[in-house]
Amino acid sequence: MLENIRIVLVNTSHPGNIGAAARAMKNMGLSKLVLVEPKEFPSYEAYSRAAGADDLLGKAVSVSTLSEAVEGCVWVAGTSARERSIPWPLQAPRVFASECVEKLGQGEIAVVFGRERTGLTNEELELCNVHINIPTDDSYSSLNVAAAVQILCYELRLALVDTVIKPTGKTPVEDTLASADQLEGMFEHMHQTMTDVEFLGTSNPAVIMRRLKSLFLRAQPSKREVNILRGFFTAVQSKDR
Amino acid sequence: MLENIRIVLVNTSHPGNIGAAARAMKNMGLSKLVLVEPKEFPSYEAYSRAAGADDLLGKAVSVSTLSEAVEGCVWVAGTSARERSIPWPLQAPRVFASECVEKLGQGEIAVVFGRERTGLTNEELELCNVHINIPTDDSYSSLNVAAAVQILCYELRLALVDTVIKPTGKTPVEDTLASADQLEGMFEHMHQTMTDVEFLGTSNPAVIMRRLKSLFLRAQPSKREVNILRGFFTAVQSKDR
Repeated sequence: MLENIRIVLVNTSHPGNIGAAARAMKNMGLSKLVLVEPKEFPSYEAYSRAAGADDLLGKAVSVSTLSEAVEGCVWVAGTSARERSIPWPLQAPRVFASECVEKLGQGEIAVVFGRERTGLTNEELELCNVHINIPTDDSYSSLNVAAAVQILCYELRLALVDTVIKPTGKTPVEDTLASADQLEGMFEHMHQTMTDVEFLGTSNPAVIMRRLKSLFLRAQPSKREVNILRGFFTAVQSKDR
Repeated sequence: MLENIRIVLVNTSHPGNIGAAARAMKNMGLSKLVLVEPKEFPSYEAYSRAAGADDLLGKAVSVSTLSEAVEGCVWVAGTSARERSIPWPLQAPRVFASECVEKLGQGEIAVVFGRERTGLTNEELELCNVHINIPTDDSYSSLNVAAAVQILCYELRLALVDTVIKPTGKTPVEDTLASADQLEGMFEHMHQTMTDVEFLGTSNPAVIMRRLKSLFLRAQPSKREVNILRGFFTAVQSKDR
Protein backbone atom coordinates (compact mmCIF):
# COMPACT_ATOMS: atom_id res chain seq x y z
CA MET A 1 0.00 0.00 0.00
CA LEU A 2 2.68 2.49 1.02
CA GLU A 3 4.35 2.36 -2.40
CA ASN A 4 1.26 4.04 -3.82
CA ILE A 5 1.92 7.19 -1.83
CA ARG A 6 4.08 9.95 -3.34
CA ILE A 7 5.86 12.44 -1.18
CA VAL A 8 6.17 15.69 -3.12
CA LEU A 9 8.64 18.38 -2.02
CA VAL A 10 8.11 21.78 -3.64
CA ASN A 11 11.05 24.17 -4.25
CA THR A 12 13.16 22.84 -1.40
CA SER A 13 16.08 25.20 -0.67
CA HIS A 14 18.35 23.00 1.43
CA PRO A 15 19.41 19.72 -0.15
CA GLY A 16 19.99 18.32 3.37
CA ASN A 17 16.25 18.46 3.88
CA ILE A 18 15.68 16.38 0.76
CA GLY A 19 18.05 13.74 2.09
CA ALA A 20 16.47 13.75 5.55
CA ALA A 21 13.00 13.47 3.99
CA ALA A 22 14.13 10.44 1.96
CA ARG A 23 15.46 8.81 5.12
CA ALA A 24 12.20 9.51 6.98
CA MET A 25 10.24 7.97 4.10
CA LYS A 26 12.33 4.84 3.88
CA ASN A 27 12.23 4.33 7.65
CA MET A 28 8.45 4.19 7.40
CA GLY A 29 8.34 2.08 4.24
CA LEU A 30 7.55 4.76 1.63
CA SER A 31 9.63 4.97 -1.53
CA LYS A 32 8.27 7.45 -4.10
CA LEU A 33 9.86 10.87 -3.87
CA VAL A 34 8.97 13.63 -6.34
CA LEU A 35 10.83 16.95 -6.37
CA VAL A 36 9.36 20.10 -7.85
CA GLU A 37 12.17 22.44 -8.88
CA PRO A 38 14.59 21.73 -6.04
CA LYS A 39 17.19 24.49 -5.62
CA GLU A 40 20.08 22.06 -5.60
CA PHE A 41 19.77 18.42 -6.53
CA PRO A 42 21.43 15.99 -6.72
CA SER A 43 23.90 17.10 -4.11
CA TYR A 44 26.41 15.66 -1.69
CA GLU A 45 24.51 17.11 1.27
CA ALA A 46 21.31 15.32 0.29
CA TYR A 47 23.07 11.96 0.00
CA SER A 48 24.88 12.49 3.26
CA ARG A 49 21.70 13.18 5.21
CA ALA A 50 19.83 10.35 3.48
CA ALA A 51 22.20 7.82 5.06
CA GLY A 52 20.93 4.39 3.96
CA ALA A 53 18.08 5.89 1.92
CA ASP A 54 20.25 6.96 -1.01
CA ASP A 55 18.34 4.56 -3.28
CA LEU A 56 15.24 6.75 -2.86
CA LEU A 57 17.24 9.78 -3.98
CA GLY A 58 18.58 7.84 -6.94
CA LYS A 59 15.09 7.16 -8.26
CA ALA A 60 13.55 10.48 -7.18
CA VAL A 61 11.76 12.24 -10.03
CA SER A 62 12.33 15.95 -10.63
CA VAL A 63 9.59 17.94 -12.34
CA SER A 64 8.99 21.62 -12.88
CA THR A 65 5.42 22.12 -11.65
CA LEU A 66 3.22 20.75 -8.89
CA SER A 67 0.64 19.75 -11.49
CA GLU A 68 3.14 17.38 -13.08
CA ALA A 69 4.11 16.03 -9.67
CA VAL A 70 0.58 14.99 -8.76
CA GLU A 71 -0.43 13.75 -12.20
CA GLY A 72 -2.47 10.55 -11.98
CA CYS A 73 -3.12 10.84 -8.26
CA VAL A 74 -6.66 10.25 -7.01
CA TRP A 75 -6.13 12.17 -3.81
CA VAL A 76 -3.77 15.07 -3.10
CA ALA A 77 -3.07 16.50 0.32
CA GLY A 78 -1.12 19.71 0.93
CA THR A 79 0.54 20.46 4.25
CA SER A 80 0.12 23.93 5.62
CA ALA A 81 1.34 25.42 8.87
CA ARG A 82 -0.97 28.40 8.94
CA GLU A 83 -4.63 28.95 8.56
CA ARG A 84 -5.22 30.10 5.04
CA SER A 85 -7.80 32.42 3.72
CA ILE A 86 -8.95 29.81 1.23
CA PRO A 87 -11.81 27.70 2.56
CA TRP A 88 -10.62 24.13 2.16
CA PRO A 89 -11.14 20.92 4.09
CA LEU A 90 -8.52 20.78 6.83
CA GLN A 91 -7.45 17.50 8.44
CA ALA A 92 -5.17 16.40 11.24
CA PRO A 93 -2.44 13.96 10.10
CA ARG A 94 -4.07 11.05 11.88
CA VAL A 95 -7.46 11.63 10.31
CA PHE A 96 -5.86 12.02 6.90
CA ALA A 97 -3.90 8.79 7.32
CA SER A 98 -7.00 6.83 8.24
CA GLU A 99 -8.81 8.20 5.17
CA CYS A 100 -5.93 7.01 3.01
CA VAL A 101 -6.74 3.44 3.97
CA GLU A 102 -9.85 3.52 1.83
CA LYS A 103 -8.59 5.93 -0.84
CA LEU A 104 -5.58 3.80 -1.71
CA GLY A 105 -7.81 1.16 -3.23
CA GLN A 106 -8.62 3.69 -5.93
CA GLY A 107 -5.17 4.84 -7.01
CA GLU A 108 -2.12 6.84 -6.01
CA ILE A 109 -2.07 9.49 -3.31
CA ALA A 110 0.25 12.51 -3.04
CA VAL A 111 1.27 14.37 0.09
CA VAL A 112 2.77 17.75 -0.76
CA PHE A 113 5.24 19.75 1.33
CA GLY A 114 6.12 23.37 0.62
CA ARG A 115 9.16 25.64 0.80
CA GLU A 116 11.19 25.91 4.00
CA ARG A 117 10.27 29.52 4.69
CA THR A 118 6.99 30.12 2.93
CA GLY A 119 5.30 26.74 2.51
CA LEU A 120 2.90 26.25 -0.38
CA THR A 121 1.32 29.12 -2.29
CA ASN A 122 -2.44 29.51 -2.32
CA GLU A 123 -2.37 28.48 -5.96
CA GLU A 124 -0.60 25.24 -5.05
CA LEU A 125 -2.93 24.58 -2.13
CA GLU A 126 -5.84 24.89 -4.51
CA LEU A 127 -4.51 21.89 -6.42
CA CYS A 128 -5.08 19.77 -3.32
CA ASN A 129 -8.17 17.85 -2.26
CA VAL A 130 -7.47 18.44 1.36
CA HIS A 131 -5.09 20.41 3.57
CA ILE A 132 -3.20 18.88 6.44
CA ASN A 133 -2.23 20.84 9.51
CA ILE A 134 0.28 19.26 11.89
CA PRO A 135 -0.49 20.41 15.43
CA THR A 136 2.30 22.56 16.88
CA ASP A 137 2.89 24.91 19.75
CA ASP A 138 1.48 28.38 19.09
CA SER A 139 4.76 30.03 20.01
CA TYR A 140 6.81 28.15 17.40
CA SER A 141 4.90 26.54 14.61
CA SER A 142 7.51 26.34 11.88
CA LEU A 143 8.35 22.67 11.45
CA ASN A 144 11.41 21.59 9.53
CA VAL A 145 10.18 20.12 6.24
CA ALA A 146 11.84 16.74 6.81
CA ALA A 147 10.33 16.63 10.31
CA ALA A 148 6.91 17.21 8.79
CA VAL A 149 7.54 14.43 6.28
CA GLN A 150 8.57 12.19 9.19
CA ILE A 151 5.33 12.78 11.08
CA LEU A 152 3.12 12.19 8.05
CA CYS A 153 4.97 9.04 7.00
CA TYR A 154 4.77 7.76 10.57
CA GLU A 155 1.01 8.29 10.68
CA LEU A 156 0.62 6.67 7.26
CA ARG A 157 2.61 3.66 8.37
CA LEU A 158 0.55 3.26 11.53
CA ALA A 159 -2.69 3.57 9.60
CA LEU A 160 -1.70 1.31 6.72
CA VAL A 161 0.72 -1.25 8.10
CA ASP A 162 0.46 -1.39 11.85
CA THR A 163 -3.29 -0.84 11.99
CA VAL A 164 -3.62 -3.50 14.59
CA ILE A 165 -1.83 -2.01 17.56
CA LYS A 166 0.33 -4.70 18.96
CA PRO A 167 -0.04 -5.69 22.57
CA THR A 168 2.07 -3.48 24.75
CA GLY A 169 3.69 -6.41 26.48
CA LYS A 170 2.95 -5.16 29.94
CA THR A 171 4.13 -8.42 31.40
CA PRO A 172 7.58 -8.57 29.96
CA VAL A 173 8.66 -11.78 31.56
CA GLU A 174 9.36 -14.51 29.12
CA ASP A 175 8.91 -17.20 31.71
CA THR A 176 5.56 -18.11 33.20
CA LEU A 177 3.81 -16.07 35.83
CA ALA A 178 3.83 -17.33 39.37
CA SER A 179 0.57 -18.80 40.56
CA ALA A 180 -1.43 -17.38 43.45
CA ASP A 181 -0.28 -20.12 45.80
CA GLN A 182 3.35 -19.63 44.82
CA LEU A 183 2.98 -15.93 45.62
CA GLU A 184 1.36 -16.76 48.93
CA GLY A 185 4.24 -19.09 49.75
CA MET A 186 6.66 -16.30 48.91
CA PHE A 187 4.76 -13.81 51.09
CA GLU A 188 4.87 -16.21 54.03
CA HIS A 189 8.59 -16.71 53.50
CA MET A 190 9.09 -12.93 53.32
CA HIS A 191 7.03 -12.43 56.49
CA GLN A 192 9.06 -15.05 58.34
CA THR A 193 12.38 -13.61 57.18
CA MET A 194 11.39 -10.07 58.12
CA THR A 195 10.35 -11.30 61.54
CA ASP A 196 13.66 -13.17 61.94
CA VAL A 197 15.75 -10.06 61.34
CA GLU A 198 13.43 -8.11 63.65
CA PHE A 199 12.25 -5.81 60.92
CA LEU A 200 8.63 -6.77 61.49
CA GLY A 201 7.27 -6.99 64.99
CA THR A 202 7.87 -3.40 65.92
CA SER A 203 5.30 -0.95 64.63
CA ASN A 204 2.56 -2.34 62.43
CA PRO A 205 3.53 -5.57 60.66
CA ALA A 206 0.16 -6.06 58.99
CA VAL A 207 0.29 -2.65 57.30
CA ILE A 208 3.84 -3.20 56.10
CA MET A 209 3.06 -6.64 54.74
CA ARG A 210 -0.01 -5.33 52.96
CA ARG A 211 2.07 -2.65 51.24
CA LEU A 212 4.69 -5.13 50.14
CA LYS A 213 2.08 -7.53 48.83
CA SER A 214 0.49 -4.73 46.86
CA LEU A 215 3.90 -3.88 45.38
CA PHE A 216 4.61 -7.45 44.27
CA LEU A 217 1.11 -8.10 43.01
CA ARG A 218 1.33 -5.02 40.82
CA ALA A 219 4.52 -6.35 39.26
CA GLN A 220 3.08 -9.82 38.63
CA PRO A 221 6.22 -11.81 39.39
CA SER A 222 7.20 -14.78 37.27
CA LYS A 223 8.01 -18.17 38.78
CA ARG A 224 11.71 -17.50 38.29
CA GLU A 225 11.51 -14.15 40.04
CA VAL A 226 9.73 -15.77 42.98
CA ASN A 227 12.56 -18.29 43.16
CA ILE A 228 15.17 -15.53 43.19
CA LEU A 229 13.41 -13.71 46.01
CA ARG A 230 12.99 -16.88 48.05
CA GLY A 231 16.65 -17.68 47.47
CA PHE A 232 17.52 -14.30 48.95
CA PHE A 233 15.23 -14.87 51.97
CA THR A 234 16.82 -18.27 52.56
CA ALA A 235 20.29 -16.69 52.42
CA VAL A 236 19.20 -14.09 54.99
CA GLN A 237 17.82 -16.79 57.28
CA SER A 238 20.97 -18.92 57.04
CA LYS A 239 23.14 -15.92 57.93
CA ASP A 240 20.84 -15.11 60.82
CA ARG A 241 21.37 -18.41 62.56
CA MET B 1 2.22 19.49 31.45
CA LEU B 2 4.76 19.25 28.64
CA GLU B 3 7.34 21.22 30.61
CA ASN B 4 7.56 18.28 33.00
CA ILE B 5 8.97 16.05 30.30
CA ARG B 6 12.74 15.88 29.78
CA ILE B 7 14.23 14.83 26.50
CA VAL B 8 17.58 13.17 27.19
CA LEU B 9 20.11 12.66 24.40
CA VAL B 10 22.93 10.27 25.23
CA ASN B 11 26.38 10.69 23.65
CA THR B 12 25.13 12.39 20.52
CA SER B 13 27.89 12.51 17.87
CA HIS B 14 26.53 15.10 15.46
CA PRO B 15 25.73 18.51 16.94
CA GLY B 16 23.28 19.08 14.08
CA ASN B 17 21.10 16.36 15.55
CA ILE B 18 21.04 18.17 18.91
CA GLY B 19 19.85 21.32 17.17
CA ALA B 20 17.22 19.47 15.14
CA ALA B 21 15.99 17.71 18.30
CA ALA B 22 15.64 21.08 20.07
CA ARG B 23 13.61 22.40 17.16
CA ALA B 24 11.38 19.31 17.15
CA MET B 25 10.81 19.75 20.89
CA LYS B 26 9.94 23.42 20.68
CA ASN B 27 7.57 22.85 17.77
CA MET B 28 5.62 20.49 19.97
CA GLY B 29 5.81 22.62 23.11
CA LEU B 30 8.53 20.78 25.05
CA SER B 31 11.42 22.72 26.54
CA LYS B 32 13.68 20.63 28.78
CA LEU B 33 16.70 19.22 26.98
CA VAL B 34 19.36 17.23 28.86
CA LEU B 35 22.56 16.13 27.14
CA VAL B 36 24.66 13.24 28.43
CA GLU B 37 28.26 13.69 27.26
CA PRO B 38 27.58 15.18 23.85
CA LYS B 39 30.57 14.85 21.50
CA GLU B 40 30.49 18.52 20.54
CA PHE B 41 28.37 21.09 22.30
CA PRO B 42 27.73 23.99 22.14
CA SER B 43 28.44 24.24 18.45
CA TYR B 44 27.56 26.38 15.48
CA GLU B 45 25.95 23.42 13.71
CA ALA B 46 23.56 22.78 16.61
CA TYR B 47 22.44 26.42 16.69
CA SER B 48 22.06 26.51 12.94
CA ARG B 49 19.79 23.44 12.83
CA ALA B 50 17.81 24.59 15.88
CA ALA B 51 16.58 27.61 13.91
CA GLY B 52 14.18 29.44 16.24
CA ALA B 53 14.72 26.94 19.06
CA ASP B 54 18.11 28.30 20.11
CA ASP B 55 16.68 29.24 23.51
CA LEU B 56 16.26 25.52 24.29
CA LEU B 57 19.93 24.94 23.46
CA GLY B 58 20.92 27.86 25.66
CA LYS B 59 19.27 26.33 28.70
CA ALA B 60 20.09 22.69 27.85
CA VAL B 61 21.80 20.90 30.74
CA SER B 62 24.91 18.79 30.11
CA VAL B 63 25.70 15.95 32.51
CA SER B 64 28.12 13.06 32.44
CA THR B 65 25.89 10.05 33.17
CA LEU B 66 22.38 8.93 32.36
CA SER B 67 21.71 8.51 36.09
CA GLU B 68 22.26 12.22 36.61
CA ALA B 69 20.11 13.03 33.61
CA VAL B 70 17.08 11.18 34.96
CA GLU B 71 17.51 12.18 38.60
CA GLY B 72 14.18 13.01 40.19
CA CYS B 73 12.10 11.52 37.38
CA VAL B 74 9.22 9.25 38.33
CA TRP B 75 9.04 7.58 34.95
CA VAL B 76 11.87 6.94 32.51
CA ALA B 77 11.41 5.65 28.98
CA GLY B 78 14.27 4.53 26.75
CA THR B 79 13.93 4.34 22.99
CA SER B 80 15.30 1.26 21.33
CA ALA B 81 15.25 0.30 17.67
CA ARG B 82 15.95 -3.37 18.11
CA GLU B 83 14.52 -6.13 20.16
CA ARG B 84 16.79 -6.60 23.14
CA SER B 85 17.58 -9.71 25.04
CA ILE B 86 16.60 -8.07 28.30
CA PRO B 87 12.97 -8.68 29.18
CA TRP B 88 11.46 -5.23 29.69
CA PRO B 89 8.04 -3.73 29.06
CA LEU B 90 7.93 -2.47 25.48
CA GLN B 91 5.49 0.20 24.35
CA ALA B 92 4.51 1.86 21.13
CA PRO B 93 4.94 5.67 21.21
CA ARG B 94 1.19 6.23 21.24
CA VAL B 95 0.59 3.91 24.16
CA PHE B 96 3.50 5.46 26.04
CA ALA B 97 2.16 8.97 25.44
CA SER B 98 -1.26 8.04 26.74
CA GLU B 99 0.28 6.56 29.88
CA CYS B 100 2.15 9.82 30.44
CA VAL B 101 -1.18 11.56 30.91
CA GLU B 102 -1.63 9.86 34.25
CA LYS B 103 2.04 9.66 35.23
CA LEU B 104 2.65 13.39 34.89
CA GLY B 105 0.51 14.11 37.90
CA GLN B 106 3.21 12.47 40.00
CA GLY B 107 6.36 14.18 38.78
CA GLU B 108 8.79 14.54 35.90
CA ILE B 109 9.15 12.09 33.05
CA ALA B 110 12.27 11.44 30.96
CA VAL B 111 12.41 10.11 27.41
CA VAL B 112 15.90 8.90 26.56
CA PHE B 113 17.45 8.67 23.08
CA GLY B 114 20.71 6.84 22.40
CA ARG B 115 23.75 7.25 20.17
CA GLU B 116 23.33 7.69 16.42
CA ARG B 117 24.89 4.37 15.48
CA THR B 118 24.46 2.16 18.50
CA GLY B 119 21.52 3.50 20.51
CA LEU B 120 21.43 2.89 24.24
CA THR B 121 23.50 0.23 25.99
CA ASN B 122 21.78 -2.54 27.90
CA GLU B 123 23.03 -0.95 31.09
CA GLU B 124 21.35 2.33 30.15
CA LEU B 125 18.15 0.56 29.13
CA GLU B 126 18.07 -1.04 32.56
CA LEU B 127 17.71 2.39 34.11
CA CYS B 128 14.38 2.77 32.32
CA ASN B 129 10.91 1.79 33.46
CA VAL B 130 9.80 1.09 29.95
CA HIS B 131 11.25 0.81 26.47
CA ILE B 132 9.74 2.50 23.46
CA ASN B 133 9.97 1.08 20.00
CA ILE B 134 9.01 3.33 17.10
CA PRO B 135 7.51 1.21 14.34
CA THR B 136 9.68 1.23 11.21
CA ASP B 137 10.05 -0.70 8.00
CA ASP B 138 11.97 -3.94 8.50
CA SER B 139 14.33 -3.14 5.64
CA TYR B 140 15.53 0.15 7.15
CA SER B 141 14.87 0.65 10.81
CA SER B 142 17.57 3.16 11.74
CA LEU B 143 15.78 6.41 12.46
CA ASN B 144 17.68 9.65 12.71
CA VAL B 145 17.75 10.61 16.39
CA ALA B 146 16.08 14.00 15.84
CA ALA B 147 13.39 12.29 13.76
CA ALA B 148 12.75 9.91 16.66
CA VAL B 149 12.54 12.89 19.03
CA GLN B 150 10.08 14.50 16.61
CA ILE B 151 7.77 11.48 16.61
CA LEU B 152 7.77 11.11 20.39
CA CYS B 153 7.20 14.82 20.99
CA TYR B 154 4.38 14.80 18.47
CA GLU B 155 2.67 11.88 20.20
CA LEU B 156 3.18 13.52 23.60
CA ARG B 157 1.64 16.74 22.35
CA LEU B 158 -1.37 14.93 20.93
CA ALA B 159 -1.87 12.97 24.14
CA LEU B 160 -1.29 15.83 26.57
CA VAL B 161 -2.42 19.01 24.89
CA ASP B 162 -4.94 18.06 22.31
CA THR B 163 -6.97 15.84 24.58
CA VAL B 164 -8.90 16.61 27.68
CA ILE B 165 -6.81 15.33 30.52
CA LYS B 166 -8.68 13.02 32.81
CA PRO B 167 -6.69 10.84 35.17
CA THR B 168 -7.85 7.25 35.09
CA GLY B 169 -6.35 6.39 38.45
CA LYS B 170 -4.61 3.35 37.03
CA THR B 171 -1.64 3.74 39.35
CA PRO B 172 -2.74 2.13 42.56
CA VAL B 173 -0.30 3.86 44.85
CA GLU B 174 -1.83 6.59 46.89
CA ASP B 175 1.49 8.11 47.80
CA THR B 176 3.99 9.59 45.35
CA LEU B 177 6.12 7.49 43.06
CA ALA B 178 9.79 7.05 43.87
CA SER B 179 12.13 8.94 41.57
CA ALA B 180 14.75 7.28 39.36
CA ASP B 181 17.60 8.15 41.73
CA GLN B 182 15.66 6.86 44.74
CA LEU B 183 15.15 3.57 42.91
CA GLU B 184 18.80 3.43 42.00
CA GLY B 185 19.71 4.01 45.64
CA MET B 186 17.42 1.17 46.61
CA PHE B 187 18.94 -1.13 44.00
CA GLU B 188 22.43 -0.40 45.32
CA HIS B 189 21.26 -1.11 48.84
CA MET B 190 19.64 -4.34 47.70
CA HIS B 191 22.78 -5.35 45.83
CA GLN B 192 24.93 -4.66 48.89
CA THR B 193 22.60 -6.56 51.21
CA MET B 194 22.45 -9.55 48.89
CA THR B 195 26.22 -9.57 48.69
CA ASP B 196 26.50 -9.34 52.49
CA VAL B 197 24.36 -12.42 53.04
CA GLU B 198 26.30 -14.21 50.30
CA PHE B 199 23.25 -14.57 48.07
CA LEU B 200 24.95 -12.75 45.23
CA GLY B 201 28.50 -13.57 44.28
CA THR B 202 27.87 -17.19 43.44
CA SER B 203 26.40 -17.85 40.00
CA ASN B 204 25.54 -14.77 37.96
CA PRO B 205 24.92 -11.65 40.06
CA ALA B 206 24.35 -9.35 37.07
CA VAL B 207 21.56 -11.52 35.69
CA ILE B 208 19.87 -11.81 39.07
CA MET B 209 20.09 -8.06 39.69
CA ARG B 210 18.68 -7.34 36.26
CA ARG B 211 15.69 -9.59 36.90
CA LEU B 212 15.00 -7.95 40.23
CA LYS B 213 15.31 -4.47 38.76
CA SER B 214 12.88 -5.41 36.04
CA LEU B 215 10.45 -6.69 38.68
CA PHE B 216 10.58 -3.52 40.75
CA LEU B 217 10.52 -1.15 37.79
CA ARG B 218 7.39 -2.89 36.55
CA ALA B 219 5.72 -2.30 39.88
CA GLN B 220 6.72 1.38 40.03
CA PRO B 221 7.34 1.54 43.76
CA SER B 222 6.19 4.56 45.72
CA LYS B 223 8.56 6.49 47.97
CA ARG B 224 7.04 4.80 51.01
CA GLU B 225 7.50 1.34 49.55
CA VAL B 226 11.13 2.12 48.80
CA ASN B 227 11.54 3.16 52.44
CA ILE B 228 9.99 -0.11 53.64
CA LEU B 229 12.30 -2.18 51.46
CA ARG B 230 15.37 -0.24 52.53
CA GLY B 231 14.28 -0.62 56.15
CA PHE B 232 14.23 -4.36 55.61
CA PHE B 233 17.69 -4.32 53.98
CA THR B 234 19.07 -2.30 56.87
CA ALA B 235 17.60 -4.80 59.35
CA VAL B 236 19.25 -7.66 57.45
CA GLN B 237 22.59 -5.86 57.45
CA SER B 238 22.42 -5.09 61.19
CA LYS B 239 21.67 -8.75 61.97
CA ASP B 240 24.52 -9.80 59.75
CA ARG B 241 27.14 -8.01 61.79
